Amino acid sequence: MTDAPAGKGTGVRRRGRPPRTESADTRDRILVTAREEFSEHGFEKTSVRAIAKAAGVDSALVHHYFGTKEQIFEAAIAVAFAPVVDAPGAIADGPLEGVGERLTRFVFGIWENPTTRTPLLAIVRSAVNNETAAAVFRRLIAAQLLSRLAQQVDHPDGELRADLAAAQLVGCAMLRYVIKVEPLASADVEQIVARIAPVVQGHLTGP
Amino acid sequence: MTDAPAGKGTGVRRRGRPPRTESADTRDRILVTAREEFSEHGFEKTSVRAIAKAAGVDSALVHHYFGTKEQIFEAAIAVAFAPVVDAPGAIADGPLEGVGERLTRFVFGIWENPTTRTPLLAIVRSAVNNETAAAVFRRLIAAQLLSRLAQQVDHPDGELRADLAAAQLVGCAMLRYVIKVEPLASADVEQIVARIAPVVQGHLTGP
Repeated sequence: MTDAPAGKGTGVRRRGRPPRTESADTRDRILVTAREEFSEHGFEKTSVRAIAKAAGVDSALVHHYFGTKEQIFEAAIAVAFAPVVDAPGAIADGPLEGVGERLTRFVFGIWENPTTRTPLLAIVRSAVNNETAAAVFRRLIAAQLLSRLAQQVDHPDGELRADLAAAQLVGCAMLRYVIKVEPLASADVEQIVARIAPVVQGHLTGP
Repeated sequence: MTDAPAGKGTGVRRRGRPPRTESADTRDRILVTAREEFSEHGFEKTSVRAIAKAAGVDSALVHHYFGTKEQIFEAAIAVAFAPVVDAPGAIADGPLEGVGERLTRFVFGIWENPTTRTPLLAIVRSAVNNETAAAVFRRLIAAQLLSRLAQQVDHPDGELRADLAAAQLVGCAMLRYVIKVEPLASADVEQIVARIAPVVQGHLTGP
């Protein structure tokens, strides 16, 4: 496997670990491909075999790196949320009085960027239509972001507060980017942030 | 047609109007069936033929009453929003200081009632996945409810305010009823209304 081009062998046996860089490259390529496939076809209609084929690797390798289709989906979602997952301090940590604006800017930053919007749209569509995808979304959003926010907020009802703050942002994203209700769909993003950030902040730290 | 059982004839010609009650009954039956079919299969996978068959009528009669599949879908959505459509005064009219709570209670009233929740869930799923369904959703929500709210609010940015208020409610519904994020999914509805109504009010009439 070390020198063989990835994806040529079927049922290839791995002897020892491939060098870190090649392994990481292949893994990344599978992940990018998985994101594209899920974006285009949704969770239900995407197969591990189709991801493997599009990435030019064997299905076994996809399973080796990520496990089940659900786990691949979760890893693909995690990429969209990489700023949260990789930089724990970015939103939840930092001064509490700015957390509403940081969270709001983070969410709109993802949605305004076409590169991250497309996969996110696919994730939302999958989560709305499929229980498994919803569970992944729930676990990732709730565990990674909201529970950390709730800890930071440190209220007895911190978790509910985090949910309601997220609800304002999720609803904005739904109406602006998915359903495309006007004038919200065409409004200047700074105008929206100016109105939404205080509401998010209020949910998190208000009376 | 007047005395013949509805739906038996193919390409039946209507001679004069059937008595109001029979016509209304058939129309209602088609509508209820359409809602069930859309709920179960979503917009894309539901055909006019399937609706007609399930309602025990001819496809031509479905088209006669409602027009295109899109128009049937719109009529089926309108049923879920009947309280808004039929009682214009209920939310948007009435004293402005209570509009946030009226709107919030109306939305949660629909979602907490299993009879209206199921079709609404189908509508949301269809709107998220299908451009046509999204357009219907948009037209109905924006035209029927939000524009009326915006008029009532009477701010220069009344329409954006109405959208942002709706976003808070849509997001709550998404996280509570569709994605089922905890603790929001299991929280007492009165606790949610108590937190959300002032936010909705603030969007609509705040500084």
